[in-house]
Amino acid sequence: MASCLLISSGMVPPDGRSRVVVEHVRPQVDDGEFAVKRTVGDALIVESDIFADGHDAVAGEVLYRHALDEDWRRLPMTPAGNDRWRCEIPLPEIGRYRYTVEGWIDRFTSWRGDLIKRIDAGQAVRIEYLVGAELLDQAATRAADAEADAAQLREWAAALRGTEVAMSKQVALADEVAAMMERYPDRRFATRYGKELALVVDREKAGFSAWYEVFPRSCSPDASRPGTLRDCEARLPYIAAMGFDTLYFPPIHPIGQTARKGKNNRIAAGPDDPGSPWAIGSAEGGHTAIDPKLGTLDDFERLVAKAAEFEIEIALDLAFQCSPDHPYVRQHPEWFRRRPDGTIQCAQNPPKNYEDIFPFDFETPQWRELSEELKNVVMFWIARGVRIFRVDNPHTKALPFWEWLIGDVKDRHPEVIFLAEAFTRPKVMYRLAKAGFSQSYTYFTWRNSKQELTDYFRQLTETELREFNRPNLWPNTPDILSEFLQVGGRAAFVIRLILAATLGANYGIYGPAFELCENAPREPGAEEYLDSEKYEVKHWDWDSPRSLKDLIARINRIRRENPSLRRDANLRFHETDNPSVICYSKSSAGLAETVIVLCNLDPFHTQSGWLNLDLGSLGLDPNRTFQAHDLLGGARYLWHGARNYFELVPETRPAHIMKVRRWVRTERDFDYYL
Amino acid sequence: MASCLLISSGMVPPDGRSRVVVEHVRPQVDDGEFAVKRTVGDALIVESDIFADGHDAVAGEVLYRHALDEDWRRLPMTPAGNDRWRCEIPLPEIGRYRYTVEGWIDRFTSWRGDLIKRIDAGQAVRIEYLVGAELLDQAATRAADAEADAAQLREWAAALRGTEVAMSKQVALADEVAAMMERYPDRRFATRYGKELALVVDREKAGFSAWYEVFPRSCSPDASRPGTLRDCEARLPYIAAMGFDTLYFPPIHPIGQTARKGKNNRIAAGPDDPGSPWAIGSAEGGHTAIDPKLGTLDDFERLVAKAAEFEIEIALDLAFQCSPDHPYVRQHPEWFRRRPDGTIQCAQNPPKNYEDIFPFDFETPQWRELSEELKNVVMFWIARGVRIFRVDNPHTKALPFWEWLIGDVKDRHPEVIFLAEAFTRPKVMYRLAKAGFSQSYTYFTWRNSKQELTDYFRQLTETELREFNRPNLWPNTPDILSEFLQVGGRAAFVIRLILAATLGANYGIYGPAFELCENAPREPGAEEYLDSEKYEVKHWDWDSPRSLKDLIARINRIRRENPSLRRDANLRFHETDNPSVICYSKSSAGLAETVIVLCNLDPFHTQSGWLNLDLGSLGLDPNRTFQAHDLLGGARYLWHGARNYFELVPETRPAHIMKVRRWVRTERDFDYYL
Repeated sequence: MASCLLISSGMVPPDGRSRVVVEHVRPQVDDGEFAVKRTVGDALIVESDIFADGHDAVAGEVLYRHALDEDWRRLPMTPAGNDRWRCEIPLPEIGRYRYTVEGWIDRFTSWRGDLIKRIDAGQAVRIEYLVGAELLDQAATRAADAEADAAQLREWAAALRGTEVAMSKQVALADEVAAMMERYPDRRFATRYGKELALVVDREKAGFSAWYEVFPRSCSPDASRPGTLRDCEARLPYIAAMGFDTLYFPPIHPIGQTARKGKNNRIAAGPDDPGSPWAIGSAEGGHTAIDPKLGTLDDFERLVAKAAEFEIEIALDLAFQCSPDHPYVRQHPEWFRRRPDGTIQCAQNPPKNYEDIFPFDFETPQWRELSEELKNVVMFWIARGVRIFRVDNPHTKALPFWEWLIGDVKDRHPEVIFLAEAFTRPKVMYRLAKAGFSQSYTYFTWRNSKQELTDYFRQLTETELREFNRPNLWPNTPDILSEFLQVGGRAAFVIRLILAATLGANYGIYGPAFELCENAPREPGAEEYLDSEKYEVKHWDWDSPRSLKDLIARINRIRRENPSLRRDANLRFHETDNPSVICYSKSSAGLAETVIVLCNLDPFHTQSGWLNLDLGSLGLDPNRTFQAHDLLGGARYLWHGARNYFELVPETRPAHIMKVRRWVRTERDFDYYL
Repeated sequence: MASCLLISSGMVPPDGRSRVVVEHVRPQVDDGEFAVKRTVGDALIVESDIFADGHDAVAGEVLYRHALDEDWRRLPMTPAGNDRWRCEIPLPEIGRYRYTVEGWIDRFTSWRGDLIKRIDAGQAVRIEYLVGAELLDQAATRAADAEADAAQLREWAAALRGTEVAMSKQVALADEVAAMMERYPDRRFATRYGKELALVVDREKAGFSAWYEVFPRSCSPDASRPGTLRDCEARLPYIAAMGFDTLYFPPIHPIGQTARKGKNNRIAAGPDDPGSPWAIGSAEGGHTAIDPKLGTLDDFERLVAKAAEFEIEIALDLAFQCSPDHPYVRQHPEWFRRRPDGTIQCAQNPPKNYEDIFPFDFETPQWRELSEELKNVVMFWIARGVRIFRVDNPHTKALPFWEWLIGDVKDRHPEVIFLAEAFTRPKVMYRLAKAGFSQSYTYFTWRNSKQELTDYFRQLTETELREFNRPNLWPNTPDILSEFLQVGGRAAFVIRLILAATLGANYGIYGPAFELCENAPREPGAEEYLDSEKYEVKHWDWDSPRSLKDLIARINRIRRENPSLRRDANLRFHETDNPSVICYSKSSAGLAETVIVLCNLDPFHTQSGWLNLDLGSLGLDPNRTFQAHDLLGGARYLWHGARNYFELVPETRPAHIMKVRRWVRTERDFDYYL
């Protein structure tokens, strides 16, 4: 905009001598309005066009700073062809960063290049040496703080001015002179990119996590009573054995009595019906209270500490809505929308009404107080040791509210992770990610065919989305029992588990419904569970022989042991000639480690065929054999080139997770693979 | 950026109740830093994402204003699916515009939609009517200035509140109520897009022009003396007969004597050598003087007026550089770069030196004065009636200088057209276009094969480039005699002419070298003309029977008569099964008129084959015959469906320019085509 205003102002531009153009700096999200996201240990690869009029050489640097830095740090950019420049910023600390790019005319490099051409053409270059001497003297002035360097530069300048032509030439072309000149660039007319771009570096778990969702009230070992937070403690070894690192609870607050829903979402609850945990608030308290049936705040803090011993973090649910009995309704009626008859507007999706839920009105004149209070809720749980929040239906709350809340919380606690549970239109979901959510639920839950999965994951991992939207893949949730799981039997659960855990660096399951392969829908055509845990207490057969828990444990171990599975943007699809079999790979930086996944998407039939690997993306030699080591089944296959045969059997071997073991050396009759 | 600062500020956002998101407004160039270009009579199609949290309906408007407007004008946007909205702004006036987008929650539409669902479900809606009445009353307040409307709204509100349910329902669902409510939207919490985007609307010639370049000194009818501006007058009928609308002269200023170049760019000029017109300036004056050998300022103004009678405009060359004899060198030595030996640095491309040219130093401390003076040069010629400038090597002058100069000139004279002659790296060329140049030279001159042409023109017409970079296609220039023209004989000239004139809405030729098919290079492998007109006076055989002037006249007439050829972005390529034959089409708005071009790119051999038209893009029925009327040869072909046969003979019929005549009706045995 600045330059447009300039055009109309009729003024001479104030920077007329800044001849270098710096443009198209990447990555950036929505013209720099939102932050790019990375996790600690990543490198941020910054690219920019840098060029000027004429034929002068240019140089450029990335400027970046952590929120706590006083000054910019600088890293040199290197040319990548066609006026594009590149730089890798290492990111060892979490927090908020800014970055931008600066470019300038590199007069010394221009001079040196021209000089070489003239020397090669046999021209007299006496005066060129004098020009060079001036450049060295100017650099000496800029090096005033480094006396030795300044003296050295002046000495070289004198040599260029001297009468010994051989010496002048030697100095002019010496690499050490060029290197020294690079240290003292002439940035008087440097151009700084017009925007400072934002970057959020999260801790590793924001980018790599395995979630397990469970209802605490269903964790009782005793079928005669509901579970408590203490019972959850006893469940930790079970969850840890499966290899999950994040244990997420639906809301643990007191549940409203008014308009409480009964079993299977029936309008009238019976006296023993516990109600939906999302109908938050009763006389016993609201969003900062714990349902006394589950335990106390002390129990909760104890559980958080105990979980940490198993390297498990507790994630809480932020469901910003109230039951009619929530203390807010009495204390702050102005936070809710009122109807002309004086009643409060309940949640609705006309013609349906949800009488047990009152939504907040984010357009209330008291929106500032409301926003502050909701932030206080988050800060309350942070003070109790929670650092991960799964946010319920964030798309039904004002977007500016989230941007403010997450920004403010993360300024104080950059380690906090927010997962957006927004199953809604794509642009709304992506705007929530831009507003600051660390992770986002996805459409994975409903993407089953090879074409659907390929299209969707290419969009997630190959477009701008990968800069700010971290997918978290859930095969099921308490709200969603997909048709695929309903009809596909145990194999369907295995397939969806493998896809979720390997397509996504972040994934989660709602258990034990998942590992026990619960697949009965409330009614044919419905996507909800029969006898949903949302409305009743369950007593699960945790150790059923049918359980997938051992397979889950194995898959989570594979994820931990293979760094390539910790990222999303490294996903590459490969062709197979069978439309029911999908193949993709992930490689860690520099192709140090590669995993190829082959999965039969058909839970009913054995599928076989040929795959056609993109060897280039895998860094594999088409003329060498390599070992494909199936980390699931343990078998090792010798593969050669791009085309290889597969056969996948739903019940016993629906997928391979192949670790690529590259050929190391041949010794007599033996081949070794790494 | 604003929202990023917000995040770190820890403040409650000031617009927390503005729940609507407005993002991804298009078109825009480089995040809105530069203006989009259109020509008068075009419509600007603006698109934007508009959405909010939750399920409320939203509405949006485009706001736009001409530089002379006091206030925004508003046009409603309409939904285009997936939260995308669209609007067409008509552009009847030239000049600079701004545009942006506003979106808001449309509470009435939300209410009405929900109400219908509840009525359909048979629910009681008494209270909903009261909610609606409130909305109508609020609109009545906003309509206070339109008393009748306000009264009507209040009357409807009363009806909604009334006890007659049938009447309430009738009012609630009446289209006229909805239409009235649309006139008084509740924009209290409207979100305005964060940027005001810039648009430049040029006169039609910026987007559609046919240029003829000629050296005035070669326009003499008398072989014993050089030509003058008066002689150019006598050439106007010849040029007008060929159908050109822009007559461009290389520099017409006094030519320097010092280091003047001789014939064929020889270092030492003979006493009769006239010198290169680009070595500007002598004791007789500089950039605002006319070479006395050509005539006087009066002669020039007379020529401008005379040309206008033929609907031809004179375009001058802005070559911002000096011969060593230019008055500036004496008056403003500080505008040039000085070497350590006290001499002025001449133009160079090491190891080559151009001793007859001194470039300006745009990094001089006196850069403001220099810039002002160069602008004065432009204003001088504008005052003499010139409105079109071809700028010589703009990529060797500072980019901020052009942005300022063109902006400032066009603020006063929006009708002025600048053509950038920058044959350089793509990013520099496109930056010049963004800086404000109305038209740009292209790589067309060197793109000969079907693949090269297709790739390049798809890039020009299908990417962001089309928003700001208007190609001007030149088969030859005084500097460039392409290899294709050197070796391909007369057919090569015909082919390149047809391609230039139909691929591009703007094109030009350097004549009479072009129409006389001059094709002798200075030396084998060189791209320059033998005995180049840059260094000597020519006496052309204007009426040679070999001349292409009649063909040129026909092609320029076809261009004028077929509106589809006046645009660039409507270019579509079609398949042919012969790699030497290219096929493309252009259609005017609404497919009112369509031209299909088929061109043999091989100047040596007859080429035949089958083309495969993309009928969808042409709006043609695959089951109907249509007439392809060759505007070049006059023949009419009955074509049917996508596949049609062609045969193109280099010497006699290297191309078709087919006007599509759609089937109108069949009458007895006759088919009629429009």
